[in-house]
Amino acid sequence: MIDAIVEGDVLKAVTKAMVALVSEARFHFKDDTLHSRAVDPANVAMVIVNVPRDSFEVYKVDEEKIVGVDVNRIYDISKSIKKGELVELILENETTLKVKFGSVEYSVALIDPSAIRKEPKIPNLELPAKIVLDAGEFRKAISAADKISDHVIFRSDETGFYIEAEGDVDRITFHMSDAELIEFNRAEAKSMFSVEYLKEFMKVAGTGDILTIYLGNNYPVRLIFDVADGKAKVEYILAPRIEAE
Amino acid sequence: MIDAIVEGDVLKAVTKAMVALVSEARFHFKDDTLHSRAVDPANVAMVIVNVPRDSFEVYKVDEEKIVGVDVNRIYDISKSIKKGELVELILENETTLKVKFGSVEYSVALIDPSAIRKEPKIPNLELPAKIVLDAGEFRKAISAADKISDHVIFRSDETGFYIEAEGDVDRITFHMSDAELIEFNRAEAKSMFSVEYLKEFMKVAGTGDILTIYLGNNYPVRLIFDVADGKAKVEYILAPRIEAE
Amino acid sequence: MIDAIVEGDVLKAVTKAMVALVSEARFHFKDDTLHSRAVDPANVAMVIVNVPRDSFEVYKVDEEKIVGVDVNRIYDISKSIKKGELVELILENETTLKVKFGSVEYSVALIDPSAIRKEPKIPNLELPAKIVLDAGEFRKAISAADKISDHVIFRSDETGFYIEAEGDVDRITFHMSDAELIEFNRAEAKSMFSVEYLKEFMKVAGTGDILTIYLGNNYPVRLIFDVADGKAKVEYILAPRIEAE
Repeated sequence: MIDAIVEGDVLKAVTKAMVALVSEARFHFKDDTLHSRAVDPANVAMVIVNVPRDSFEVYKVDEEKIVGVDVNRIYDISKSIKKGELVELILENETTLKVKFGSVEYSVALIDPSAIRKEPKIPNLELPAKIVLDAGEFRKAISAADKISDHVIFRSDETGFYIEAEGDVDRITFHMSDAELIEFNRAEAKSMFSVEYLKEFMKVAGTGDILTIYLGNNYPVRLIFDVADGKAKVEYILAPRIEAE
Repeated sequence: MIDAIVEGDVLKAVTKAMVALVSEARFHFKDDTLHSRAVDPANVAMVIVNVPRDSFEVYKVDEEKIVGVDVNRIYDISKSIKKGELVELILENETTLKVKFGSVEYSVALIDPSAIRKEPKIPNLELPAKIVLDAGEFRKAISAADKISDHVIFRSDETGFYIEAEGDVDRITFHMSDAELIEFNRAEAKSMFSVEYLKEFMKVAGTGDILTIYLGNNYPVRLIFDVADGKAKVEYILAPRIEAE
Repeated sequence: MIDAIVEGDVLKAVTKAMVALVSEARFHFKDDTLHSRAVDPANVAMVIVNVPRDSFEVYKVDEEKIVGVDVNRIYDISKSIKKGELVELILENETTLKVKFGSVEYSVALIDPSAIRKEPKIPNLELPAKIVLDAGEFRKAISAADKISDHVIFRSDETGFYIEAEGDVDRITFHMSDAELIEFNRAEAKSMFSVEYLKEFMKVAGTGDILTIYLGNNYPVRLIFDVADGKAKVEYILAPRIEAE
């Protein structure tokens, strides 16, 4: 039996992060954390989600459990939870997850975990540049880039962190210097990515949320979002695109 | 000649309530109340609307009058009235209703009342259970149920009032106990209804509005909404659906 | 070289005013003002825009310059400028306009001014009636008229200013008396106009903005909007429609 109570915003953020890539996923109720990860059908991006035990009001896990979940369904339900309201997740048997908040109780059918695509191994990436910034700024840059191109270049050097996009006639440069970044190791790195994916990722983050980027050279990027007031961590790993230069 | 001044919100609430079921209706300017009622084309639901004389700032009715109104049109007009603004209804002849607010005056053509479907007789229903609750809570329950099923069960017994819906794989239960209800006679009753209609009805009510439900056993339900700060009463009577059990 | 810094709202208002009629326009960086004007493809309406030098925080114009601009593009960019944020326009060469705000810099390709439709001469109109009112009131009147007709009559006489529209069955009259108008010379005038155009024009104005109307008899109307807290002036001249009476 599992009984977990958490702020609705945490459930919303976590399921929103997953639906960007998949519609079904395994959720691991571990002793110390609620964990999930998945790769999108095209094998371009991975999402890794963790909600530590301390972020829950109640976290009673008699026995570690892996359940298969229709994340679209849970995300849909979580959208009707009011700001600040708590939600209770109850697992009494293998077939049903109860989701309770306010006067409403949903009984959601679970999916056999073995019917869900195998979970990815988290890769070990050596990424020289570390950039920490306000996720809201990142969101603005990606939104702007999206209007003129379907790919962007992330670039960092001594002068700061750059996001660049080039359209048929226009160009846009987003630049944050050392002073404007929360943390920055000034390392050189440069890779190109698909805006299509970044656009989905940025939806999990709001102004004030912190985003940590680990960037390499023509290498995958790691984007780690602290969401729901820091109560959950959402990490995306995105494969680079090849520059046609 | 009729001259009536009332808060725009009252006109908006009343016409919104009518358009849920019909597009044309008779309005009775009686000595003590503005009244209207109608049945939907499928004969599944009835709406009864009353705005007592006291809810008007001015209510000059030289002679009781029945006018035929395009309620869609009046509802549409009423939507542009600002919150708190007054609206004046003027009837100088049989063919035109003037609707005035702010700097704008609409002249709306009336419909010959004899061309509108005959008004229903209000049925006499014996309904054992009385449940009084915040209309906002009701609205949330119906919204949630709508996502998984096209019918819901209303049920009351000693333990409280329930709204239940069952989808192909999921189930949702809304429950309010005696303590959470504004008034409740703990009587037993149970009937099933179409979500399609309830979804329309709930639109007239906001959080804080009071809803009184009279419920029977496989019998029509009465839903009485106090709307526009209690200045108007909207009652819906909805026929039950037959449970396939 | 040109370097101009202004509130984002000014750039937004000015480009929004232009896109109502054209997608490309010439912008004149004059010593004392930023100016643009254009006629719509159907030759029914003209827009004239002026931002005086004093409305800029910085206005460095080494040499007067005419540049060809994709106004849709600039309007689109200006929409992402935050309320109150400043925007910098930089012209270093003939081919590119830089638009900078926050951490973002857009490089927008310019259009050869000779490839843009020739600018109209501003006509000299003798218009007897002058009506000054809150642009928000005007906006409401046009919105209401739009629901029932595709043309409206503007009319003024000793009793005030009227906007009238007549649908198949309904009629709407908007009336502001001398006392409700900001300024009014009580002159008689009457002309009919297309709602389609007025609907576009009214979008530039919000409640609190001031609109000055110069009206004649079956003659073009001048609508002068003070926008962006009075920092820019947008004038529309609209040809009348012939009344079929």
